[in-house]
Amino acid sequence: MKEKLQVAGFKAGAVKAGIRGKDRLDMALIYSEVPAAAAGVFTTSKVKAAPVLLDMEYLRGGKAQAIIVNSGIANACTGKAGMELARGTSRLVAGQLGLADELVLVSSTGVIGQQLDLAVFSNCMQPLAGSLREDGFSDVARAMMTTDTVPKTARREVELFGKKVTMLGLAKGSGMIMPNMATMLSFIVTDAAVSSSVLQQMLRQSVGQSFNAVTVDGDTSTNDTVLLLANGKAGNAAIDRLDTADALRFHQCLDDLCLDLALQIVKDGEGATKLITVQVKGAASRQEADQAARTVANSCLVKTAFFGEDANWGRIIAALGRSGIDFDPEHVDIAFDDVLMVRDGLGLGPEQEKLATRVLKQQAFAVVIDLKTGQAEAKIYTCDLSVDYIRINADYRS
Amino acid sequence: MKEKLQVAGFKAGAVKAGIRGKDRLDMALIYSEVPAAAAGVFTTSKVKAAPVLLDMEYLRGGKAQAIIVNSGIANACTGKAGMELARGTSRLVAGQLGLADELVLVSSTGVIGQQLDLAVFSNCMQPLAGSLREDGFSDVARAMMTTDTVPKTARREVELFGKKVTMLGLAKGSGMIMPNMATMLSFIVTDAAVSSSVLQQMLRQSVGQSFNAVTVDGDTSTNDTVLLLANGKAGNAAIDRLDTADALRFHQCLDDLCLDLALQIVKDGEGATKLITVQVKGAASRQEADQAARTVANSCLVKTAFFGEDANWGRIIAALGRSGIDFDPEHVDIAFDDVLMVRDGLGLGPEQEKLATRVLKQQAFAVVIDLKTGQAEAKIYTCDLSVDYIRINADYRS
Repeated sequence: MKEKLQVAGFKAGAVKAGIRGKDRLDMALIYSEVPAAAAGVFTTSKVKAAPVLLDMEYLRGGKAQAIIVNSGIANACTGKAGMELARGTSRLVAGQLGLADELVLVSSTGVIGQQLDLAVFSNCMQPLAGSLREDGFSDVARAMMTTDTVPKTARREVELFGKKVTMLGLAKGSGMIMPNMATMLSFIVTDAAVSSSVLQQMLRQSVGQSFNAVTVDGDTSTNDTVLLLANGKAGNAAIDRLDTADALRFHQCLDDLCLDLALQIVKDGEGATKLITVQVKGAASRQEADQAARTVANSCLVKTAFFGEDANWGRIIAALGRSGIDFDPEHVDIAFDDVLMVRDGLGLGPEQEKLATRVLKQQAFAVVIDLKTGQAEAKIYTCDLSVDYIRINADYRS
Repeated sequence: MKEKLQVAGFKAGAVKAGIRGKDRLDMALIYSEVPAAAAGVFTTSKVKAAPVLLDMEYLRGGKAQAIIVNSGIANACTGKAGMELARGTSRLVAGQLGLADELVLVSSTGVIGQQLDLAVFSNCMQPLAGSLREDGFSDVARAMMTTDTVPKTARREVELFGKKVTMLGLAKGSGMIMPNMATMLSFIVTDAAVSSSVLQQMLRQSVGQSFNAVTVDGDTSTNDTVLLLANGKAGNAAIDRLDTADALRFHQCLDDLCLDLALQIVKDGEGATKLITVQVKGAASRQEADQAARTVANSCLVKTAFFGEDANWGRIIAALGRSGIDFDPEHVDIAFDDVLMVRDGLGLGPEQEKLATRVLKQQAFAVVIDLKTGQAEAKIYTCDLSVDYIRINADYRS
């Protein structure tokens, strides 16, 4: 039986606003019956879309009660008019639901540099408010989609102070960048009671190990956004520090949900046919492990070899070589899952390669690199680079 | 009339060693009648192939008289046996030609992690020496090719102290990385008289603006090598400092030849259909200009949009945003050739886009980005990312 995508005190809904053709859900609303503690993590790009700038401003208060999201246009690189559109959108929702403007967050994904008229939003306000239902989250997941081929949702339960708490997450994304209409957006709602400052710290850490540890094409969007609302309806004693057993359990649950959503994004990566975990261990520092894993995970040649199911460890060691980290090439081990392919920088020959090729034929596998320099490790999740990636991205706007 | 690919005092030749099938030139030799001043620039990868390590060692003496090159195997990640093979190869040539080992440089391009027997080289010594001719350089250019579709040569003349000096360059490369069999190798010979130390300084600078300013896929090979031999046969007064008029003229000529070869590599980039110059100006520093230009030039999404002839400036500004440099997105201008597409961070609309799309239909064009932050600028040369790139790289080894 499929779990119900519901969380106490939250409603959600979506409508067809006509931004992405006539017959597609492309505008959605998430609403909490009471003001919720709120946290957000945003793109590190120097170029931030207007909704990102607005949400960063509004989240200083640590509270939110609604999120409006549209797909089709990103409202990025739109200057002052873009900020006015974002503010105006928030104000419309606030007016419709009887909330303060600052409690309404805004999110957009779509083409950069194009702009909508505020009328597109005002025309939708009544139907959007009318669409709110307890089980409306799957419609929201669908309305957020752009080049995504499937909606992405995840749900977790955890017990805090004897109360059952539910956590529900939605995500979209399949390339990492916007003009592609493939920004990464995720909205997570929970009925847990958690203070805003703890929520913000937990979210930042969880995102670091999940959404920020995946890559489809190494590009970062102007609109990347993860929002987390906790409305306290579960009735648990509020979590207001990080180091209690209940806080850890909640944080673990958040980690797990974020990783679930992030991996759904990689699996649905544009043109992707495989999910690959690049694990670097034995590094001098966590930072070096991360840098090495990212360089391998973003190498066009490595990713293309995976598409070709070619156990081409030379490309992996070459990517390590240019990653900028310090290591001794003559001490490196490389394995595909549990098949060791390279020991101390030397290939182990055709028999091992046959076994490794078998691993690469799977839909998901790990590349495990041991630098034997120190104790630190990192994991980055990526997909292969296929002919379809090029087709999707060369043809997209035209 | 095609210029003769000859330089006084140099001979060259190539043979079929059977490394890459039965009927392909795959081993070649360049020979100077007298010891030549020699300079080299090598891959910055932490993982350097055996021939690279050997050449770095031998070039400490500043002299060389021969270069032996093979395609098919890279002799990279081959450990101690690989170094022995490289040394043994140099020794075989030295024995055949009656030279000191240290005067024979070795270069390889091909699959990483595989190894040849020294017998492959020893069997070729007599025919290889027998193949040496004054006009043998076009055979060498052919023998160096791997996934290259055309041999790459360039020739320049310059007058130094009233004497005509000739410079001849060969290059191979079409992806940037080895297991792809697509390392970048270039050998340049000249009859100018130049001291080794000046030669080394000039080569490093020229490579910075040419071979190091091009990118096909952002990957760096374990074997990348540029070697320059100057044998003094032109009889000019030797250039032994950088700041004379003759030195500048020679250096300019070297810059020009290197850029010519480097652009031939980009044009022949795996699957490439277009040559794109990414120029960043108005940057705070040369380093920031270079970093911004490289990020744009390596973005899969930008390169795929060029393949699709899509004037998708949003992808360009998004790449700038994640490049790590400091700039104000609301002051950025972007032009395709002389068609301004973005002014102060805002798109200039469909009419300009029509004009820009016309620019993108050309085989070569420039993306000109003005950050309006400072005075520094940089140029990086790249190609588009096509369906064929994936095909070539996914299928290569199998």
